Amino acid sequence: MTIPNLVGAGLIVIGAGIGLGKIGGSAMEGIARQPEATGKIQTAMIIIAALLEGLAFGALFLGK
Amino acid sequence: MTIPNLVGAGLIVIGAGIGLGKIGGSAMEGIARQPEATGKIQTAMIIIAALLEGLAFGALFLGK
Amino acid sequence: MTIPNLVGAGLIVIGAGIGLGKIGGSAMEGIARQPEATGKIQTAMIIIAALLEGLAFGALFLGK
Repeated sequence: MTIPNLVGAGLIVIGAGIGLGKIGGSAMEGIARQPEATGKIQTAMIIIAALLEGLAFGALFLGK
Repeated sequence: MTIPNLVGAGLIVIGAGIGLGKIGGSAMEGIARQPEATGKIQTAMIIIAALLEGLAFGALFLGK
Repeated sequence: MTIPNLVGAGLIVIGAGIGLGKIGGSAMEGIARQPEATGKIQTAMIIIAALLEGLAFGALFLGK
């Protein structure tokens, strides 16, 4: 029995989904609570989302 | 039965996703509550996110 | 059946991710509630994060 690579890729997306979901969800709730802080919240959101996105793509390439 | 390396890479991203999600989520909620503390919150966010990101990439390279 | 080393590395990062996520999340929430205590919170955050980071890297090297 061999487990296909795609199972690993799926686990990567589960991890990125949990993380990006929490990041995006909290960003949206924050903007809804303080619409005048939208710019600041969006900057922080993009920084942390880029870190996770970069790691997920790095794992896809390096883990193969 | 062989388990591909990519499954391990997926577990790494699940760990980083849980961590970065909580870090980013709390940062966004904090900025929404105290927009004037954005700089301080963002600095702490980047310090702890860099620690986790570094560990995740280190694990990708060392664990292979 | 062979389980690659990278699966163990992934489990290490899951553990560190849960821990660093809770540490960073609570630090951010604390800074948002008391911005004037940022220095104290950040110092404590870095001490405890370094302990977990050191353990995770130690496990990566020793467990191999």
